Amino acid sequence: MPTFSRLTDPMSGSPAVLAIFSDAGTVRRMLDVEAALARAEAQARVIPTAAADVIAQVCADAGVIDLDALAHDADAAGNLAIPFVKQLTAAVTRRDVEAARYVHWGATSQDIIDTALVLQLADALHEIDAGLLRLGDACAALATAHRDTPMVGRTWLQHALPATFGLKAAGWLDALRRHLARLDAARAQARTLQFGGAAGTLASLGDDAPAVAGALAQALTLDLPALPWHTHRDRLAEVATTLGLLVGTLGKIARDISLLMQTEVAEVAEPSAPGRGGSSTMPHKRNPVGCAAVLTAAVRVPPLVATMLAGMTQEHERALGGWQAEWDTLPQIVTLAAGALRQMGDVVAGLQVDAARMRANLDLTRGLILGEAAMLELGRRIGRLPAHHVVEQASRRAVADGTTLRDALARTLDEDPAHRGLLDAATLDRLSDPAAYAGQAAPFADAAVAAWRQARASRQQD
Amino acid sequence: MPTFSRLTDPMSGSPAVLAIFSDAGTVRRMLDVEAALARAEAQARVIPTAAADVIAQVCADAGVIDLDALAHDADAAGNLAIPFVKQLTAAVTRRDVEAARYVHWGATSQDIIDTALVLQLADALHEIDAGLLRLGDACAALATAHRDTPMVGRTWLQHALPATFGLKAAGWLDALRRHLARLDAARAQARTLQFGGAAGTLASLGDDAPAVAGALAQALTLDLPALPWHTHRDRLAEVATTLGLLVGTLGKIARDISLLMQTEVAEVAEPSAPGRGGSSTMPHKRNPVGCAAVLTAAVRVPPLVATMLAGMTQEHERALGGWQAEWDTLPQIVTLAAGALRQMGDVVAGLQVDAARMRANLDLTRGLILGEAAMLELGRRIGRLPAHHVVEQASRRAVADGTTLRDALARTLDEDPAHRGLLDAATLDRLSDPAAYAGQAAPFADAAVAAWRQARASRQQD
Amino acid sequence: MPTFSRLTDPMSGSPAVLAIFSDAGTVRRMLDVEAALARAEAQARVIPTAAADVIAQVCADAGVIDLDALAHDADAAGNLAIPFVKQLTAAVTRRDVEAARYVHWGATSQDIIDTALVLQLADALHEIDAGLLRLGDACAALATAHRDTPMVGRTWLQHALPATFGLKAAGWLDALRRHLARLDAARAQARTLQFGGAAGTLASLGDDAPAVAGALAQALTLDLPALPWHTHRDRLAEVATTLGLLVGTLGKIARDISLLMQTEVAEVAEPSAPGRGGSSTMPHKRNPVGCAAVLTAAVRVPPLVATMLAGMTQEHERALGGWQAEWDTLPQIVTLAAGALRQMGDVVAGLQVDAARMRANLDLTRGLILGEAAMLELGRRIGRLPAHHVVEQASRRAVADGTTLRDALARTLDEDPAHRGLLDAATLDRLSDPAAYAGQAAPFADAAVAAWRQARASRQQD
Amino acid sequence: MPTFSRLTDPMSGSPAVLAIFSDAGTVRRMLDVEAALARAEAQARVIPTAAADVIAQVCADAGVIDLDALAHDADAAGNLAIPFVKQLTAAVTRRDVEAARYVHWGATSQDIIDTALVLQLADALHEIDAGLLRLGDACAALATAHRDTPMVGRTWLQHALPATFGLKAAGWLDALRRHLARLDAARAQARTLQFGGAAGTLASLGDDAPAVAGALAQALTLDLPALPWHTHRDRLAEVATTLGLLVGTLGKIARDISLLMQTEVAEVAEPSAPGRGGSSTMPHKRNPVGCAAVLTAAVRVPPLVATMLAGMTQEHERALGGWQAEWDTLPQIVTLAAGALRQMGDVVAGLQVDAARMRANLDLTRGLILGEAAMLELGRRIGRLPAHHVVEQASRRAVADGTTLRDALARTLDEDPAHRGLLDAATLDRLSDPAAYAGQAAPFADAAVAAWRQARASRQQD
Repeated sequence: MPTFSRLTDPMSGSPAVLAIFSDAGTVRRMLDVEAALARAEAQARVIPTAAADVIAQVCADAGVIDLDALAHDADAAGNLAIPFVKQLTAAVTRRDVEAARYVHWGATSQDIIDTALVLQLADALHEIDAGLLRLGDACAALATAHRDTPMVGRTWLQHALPATFGLKAAGWLDALRRHLARLDAARAQARTLQFGGAAGTLASLGDDAPAVAGALAQALTLDLPALPWHTHRDRLAEVATTLGLLVGTLGKIARDISLLMQTEVAEVAEPSAPGRGGSSTMPHKRNPVGCAAVLTAAVRVPPLVATMLAGMTQEHERALGGWQAEWDTLPQIVTLAAGALRQMGDVVAGLQVDAARMRANLDLTRGLILGEAAMLELGRRIGRLPAHHVVEQASRRAVADGTTLRDALARTLDEDPAHRGLLDAATLDRLSDPAAYAGQAAPFADAAVAAWRQARASRQQD
Repeated sequence: MPTFSRLTDPMSGSPAVLAIFSDAGTVRRMLDVEAALARAEAQARVIPTAAADVIAQVCADAGVIDLDALAHDADAAGNLAIPFVKQLTAAVTRRDVEAARYVHWGATSQDIIDTALVLQLADALHEIDAGLLRLGDACAALATAHRDTPMVGRTWLQHALPATFGLKAAGWLDALRRHLARLDAARAQARTLQFGGAAGTLASLGDDAPAVAGALAQALTLDLPALPWHTHRDRLAEVATTLGLLVGTLGKIARDISLLMQTEVAEVAEPSAPGRGGSSTMPHKRNPVGCAAVLTAAVRVPPLVATMLAGMTQEHERALGGWQAEWDTLPQIVTLAAGALRQMGDVVAGLQVDAARMRANLDLTRGLILGEAAMLELGRRIGRLPAHHVVEQASRRAVADGTTLRDALARTLDEDPAHRGLLDAATLDRLSDPAAYAGQAAPFADAAVAAWRQARASRQQD
Repeated sequence: MPTFSRLTDPMSGSPAVLAIFSDAGTVRRMLDVEAALARAEAQARVIPTAAADVIAQVCADAGVIDLDALAHDADAAGNLAIPFVKQLTAAVTRRDVEAARYVHWGATSQDIIDTALVLQLADALHEIDAGLLRLGDACAALATAHRDTPMVGRTWLQHALPATFGLKAAGWLDALRRHLARLDAARAQARTLQFGGAAGTLASLGDDAPAVAGALAQALTLDLPALPWHTHRDRLAEVATTLGLLVGTLGKIARDISLLMQTEVAEVAEPSAPGRGGSSTMPHKRNPVGCAAVLTAAVRVPPLVATMLAGMTQEHERALGGWQAEWDTLPQIVTLAAGALRQMGDVVAGLQVDAARMRANLDLTRGLILGEAAMLELGRRIGRLPAHHVVEQASRRAVADGTTLRDALARTLDEDPAHRGLLDAATLDRLSDPAAYAGQAAPFADAAVAAWRQARASRQQD
Repeated sequence: MPTFSRLTDPMSGSPAVLAIFSDAGTVRRMLDVEAALARAEAQARVIPTAAADVIAQVCADAGVIDLDALAHDADAAGNLAIPFVKQLTAAVTRRDVEAARYVHWGATSQDIIDTALVLQLADALHEIDAGLLRLGDACAALATAHRDTPMVGRTWLQHALPATFGLKAAGWLDALRRHLARLDAARAQARTLQFGGAAGTLASLGDDAPAVAGALAQALTLDLPALPWHTHRDRLAEVATTLGLLVGTLGKIARDISLLMQTEVAEVAEPSAPGRGGSSTMPHKRNPVGCAAVLTAAVRVPPLVATMLAGMTQEHERALGGWQAEWDTLPQIVTLAAGALRQMGDVVAGLQVDAARMRANLDLTRGLILGEAAMLELGRRIGRLPAHHVVEQASRRAVADGTTLRDALARTLDEDPAHRGLLDAATLDRLSDPAAYAGQAAPFADAAVAAWRQARASRQQD
């Protein structure tokens, strides 16, 4: 019986990944594994080819499995594979009693459950990879388009110094690039056959075991491990941690965008769509619906990753709780990550950027965020400590008088004969231009875009 | 779309609780809230009584909501209530256009979602309470029946000192008793109406707000809070932590039982049932299937509780991620707790206890676990330190010679003229009886049983 | 050896609570337990009174324990109490060899460690209770002072409807009030003696066990449990969950305040202090340093609570990992909660509130947040649906023209002969006053303040 | 002030790693960063070489920093670097007022804190790598020595089928091998300079920024990133997840060993050492002290990893809580992982293996665990289903009569004329030898050892 629902978890996944982990998707992959097993055993002359043919034919039809009965019996058995094999055997029996003797030959429940999961993960990670590329491309486009768009740099949620929107997008992009490599590593690890029989020795297949295992791995295009890994779950837990890291970055992007969308800030907006985030009676409202979905995933996924790690402490050759704790948890992680990626991709690809508002917000502190620039310029002439003192005075004056730092600084310098005339009007004007104090923002953005392009290109070659 | 399934989560719930949190169960309670809202507003003369009647009639028929369309639209809206109200309004419109104007009057989405959840929790916690009483009664029966059944006390997974099985069951029981009180407190807190309108001010109802809120709370038999609590989630998080504590105790019981069921220990066994935990070809196997389900919950629930706590950091008057993170998480916690309770209830109620094997295992160390008893007896005669020295010598001798501590001690004492004859054969025999060194095990068990009965009696009076 | 440091964890605690859980504080409480144990055993005539006197005298001097040696030996033993008892016995031996025979008589390591912890928790929770009352009083003062201060209600980080700052403070307050009761329950549970000997049977004390246990509990003013609870940790885990809930609320308050402090919002500010949150060159900056400390706790505590819950699955009569996992984790939770409470108390008690800016920000959307009010007013005259249509039109017009909703609405009504004159200028003015559309904000705030005062009064009576 | 202590966390670390993250270790690395920064800026002609020399000289002496004052001021500032730079500047001033102007030139607090952390991580991961190699070698030695040592394979904590101890050790080994590669990836990622100035633009260094950053990275032998990563924490979180995966495997090994050490199983024992795990009065006890320390880490680390992932959701250019949550958490993870590795290394390197007891335990079920072997042998002659039926009958008979499966099977076959003589005595004897039914256990162990050797060799070449 289902423990949670599409109603209480809207927005949590991408349709493709949800289909992969649906009941039907799970059973489809279990059938694939049983079919491949039968064929591999026929190839190794462990079972008759005729039997393998029948088994494979039956497995081709997902309709042979009654999902409701399966759920019911799994609840009693504490295990999906036991009732699944029973149903499959019954279905094969209806076609060919002799062939039915060879269903699931030499395998243990966990071999089927784990290998089907491995196949599902391969499919899902393929989707996630595509989503990551799409999102990265959207960030690269923003970093390029807004390479020189001035924007406030904010620390502790306070205005700090000028920066650019391109730099912010480049920061997102460079993190996404690093996830590409992590995802590659996790995908490679996860594509590994599970096949060990009841105690991981494959004793049931005698001397034919290596041939069967090899053929099975080949048929499913999975790696053949040095030995079965029933209670060594690091490969699967690595999928979880890798997606946990990715969701962390997505959450950071969503946090940034949702903060920038605040009514008082209003520098960007999620793309609008009918029935999404708007309000007919509150037309000023553009709710960050996509960001909320991503932030939801960012709250939910880290503890789920902890579950996967905690579940690794498994007993002997088959675990008691640690393995079963994975069954729902890993699909949840994958689904939440895929959903967050879908949402973030939509948001960033359609992001509405208000460069004028970014520029206007830079002036909210009347130039105070340029104190560092003024201090450095002045420091070149009178030394850092005296310069610091002058700018501090001017800043306080600007706050007290409600004037700009430029004017306060001009007056402060003018009042002290030792400083009079140090900075002329043109210099003061230049210092008052936040766009002129963005430091390496543009080359940093360029570097991130270039690195992304290179990473992308090297993947296309593979 | 569902993110996880009854197939990948067998054994995770009790049927009653799963029904409460099913899609149909959720929509049922949302309809109940909308119906009660309409009636409360009619009672307060905010909307026409005729309209309220129509709305309530429509809400009585769960079939007015198309679950598939609802799931689809919720995904776009990021919120279940918006498309729900749309569907409900359409259904009322089909009956009475005028009445449709008053659907959901003055409420905000979160009012409906939260209040429906509160009703579901009340139902589910009622079931959990019953399950807790059942499990406690089963433990009390064990503690009583095995009040004097000798058993090894084990520390660090090593034999330590004699104890009784009654003491172990009493330890389980006393913890369960404490959860009764916690559950009462959490249930009381959770039964609280959510009703605040778009920003928690109920401005949309003007001066009628208090009357409507009061009538609504009364109709749903919920508490009326001092003020709306849209972004203050401690009441719901307390349900999570309370169940987290309960599952911790269930996990401890399951750990104990599964360890006692090991082939080498074999002191207890889960009740057997067809298709559950047995193996036709391995008749020696009695898998702790119920314990595994409980241990699974014990791995999964703690991080889910962390999610609920982490989600509490919610923004202003409506959250961005923290609220949405609860939607699936809290039902998962409740369902896993209910499932673990069901499993543990079945296991303990039907537990097969092998008192003979418990007695036999006490002898595995050939009396070494009685070293403390011997030392104390001897210490009364020759002082603690010399006694310690003698027993240490005798213990090493017993290990080296593969003999019992009794014999080694007799010989060790005999060889030293100063100690010869200190302990006669009858005393040595008495010291060799583990049942005689169980200390306060029996009165402790009695105290736990008495406390349970008292707690139970005081509840029945309520 | 220490695993973390005051340098990498600044701001994480209150001095009083840090002292309680310092090395010296821990050893102090362990000595207290050993002294009380000796006296209780003398009282029950289990050990000589003279010996108990010597032991108690030695225990009075914390200097008898060499902390460095203790840390070193604990690392090897995997347990603090074993080397502690060795050092204590050696110290007593130096005074009186005979008395040294009775040190730690009949107890097990865990009895001392757990009971010392229980005493530390009692001290720490006393401090936390005081901090909670202080913070609640500060919130009550804000709720009272700003009962009628208009402020934007924000949902999804967007302006939604008018509310008051008093309502926001009242929401904080009411949650804090609920934590008072939870804290009381957890404190009551946690004050429980641990005393069971090596396997929880107190066999080492024979028939004297009940008398000793009773006297020991009385001497330490702790509750005497029905039976020892070495591997039933729900009482301690409840302290963790209770503080986890509290930190969740503190995090919510910190989130609100830090968002309100943003340069673009600037409605409140943390109190300033030298060396705290300011910047000499960036005088516009007032970093939310206290909020950051609280938000740090809100990130760190939930997973630590999960650790406590996960650790509950303990084996038999002494655990292997689950118990030891508590040792650092529970003090961290308590310390982080106490630190967050200290910070939040300072922040709220000294909060600088800019009511003028709150009022000004209400106008940022040029009246659009009053669309609901206008729609309701108009709805009373022309029905809800037509009213909705008119307001929607006017709102779009206001956005398009950069004018106020008031003016756009006036013009929209005027252009339609059917609506002309429906709302006169006075009505439009009234509708444009956000303070007039705060609904039940003020009575809600009153109710929360009254409930707080009552809860506080009932505690003072105890 | 410290929030936890070496007393409440014995066994939690390795001395080398604890020293790296001690207060002194942290300050040492911060001084290294400031010294390198000054030299890099002199090299880029941003500050005078003479000033850089003085700064570097002062930084060479860790005594210039007063740790107590630093801790006190960090608590107020909410940040370690601000008071650190103050103290350092004061110390340089005492040597050379002019040089003091250039301390920390152009950097922001987080640049110093993060880069010092990166250096500490590099040191700690070097130690962890060595510990991993040591543990892997010890596992490889066990896998080789016990390649053919028969042992029960256990599933669900029940005897399942024969296997070998070599296979179990090989399973541990192969997982450790995979962690080698993960550790390499994480180490490479983590070695990255943080240097961005107040808002990540390095505006304070003008056009000299690239030269300074490049020289600084080179001086510290760190990678130069495409752009600063103040609020992109994936590299550090990857260290956490990588160690979380490693600790999961260590926990699995510790779980296996502690279960095998149970009094009733007694197949292996931790190496004994004075003051460690033994008991003078209970000489039968050999507590799994090292395993307990590892299992403690396995409980504590997963939630700490969740903290690191949850903390990634950081605001804009400097975070509010998410960053600060890392400060203690990451050192805790690294320390716990290093401590667990040290413990596990000691345990496995000195593991006492009782092959005779392993063999004896195989007979506990009187041959029932060989049911699968018998069924397969018989199946070759009479078909799988009839064979299944016969073995099932014989198994039940063996249980009922308290005899061996061999005898029960002989009798069962003998009683049915159709089956009489099918299996002769020699065959029955062979089938009764668990060593003969270990399947691929030995080649699997060989493969894991070979893969380990290859991984090790390829590292030595680097």
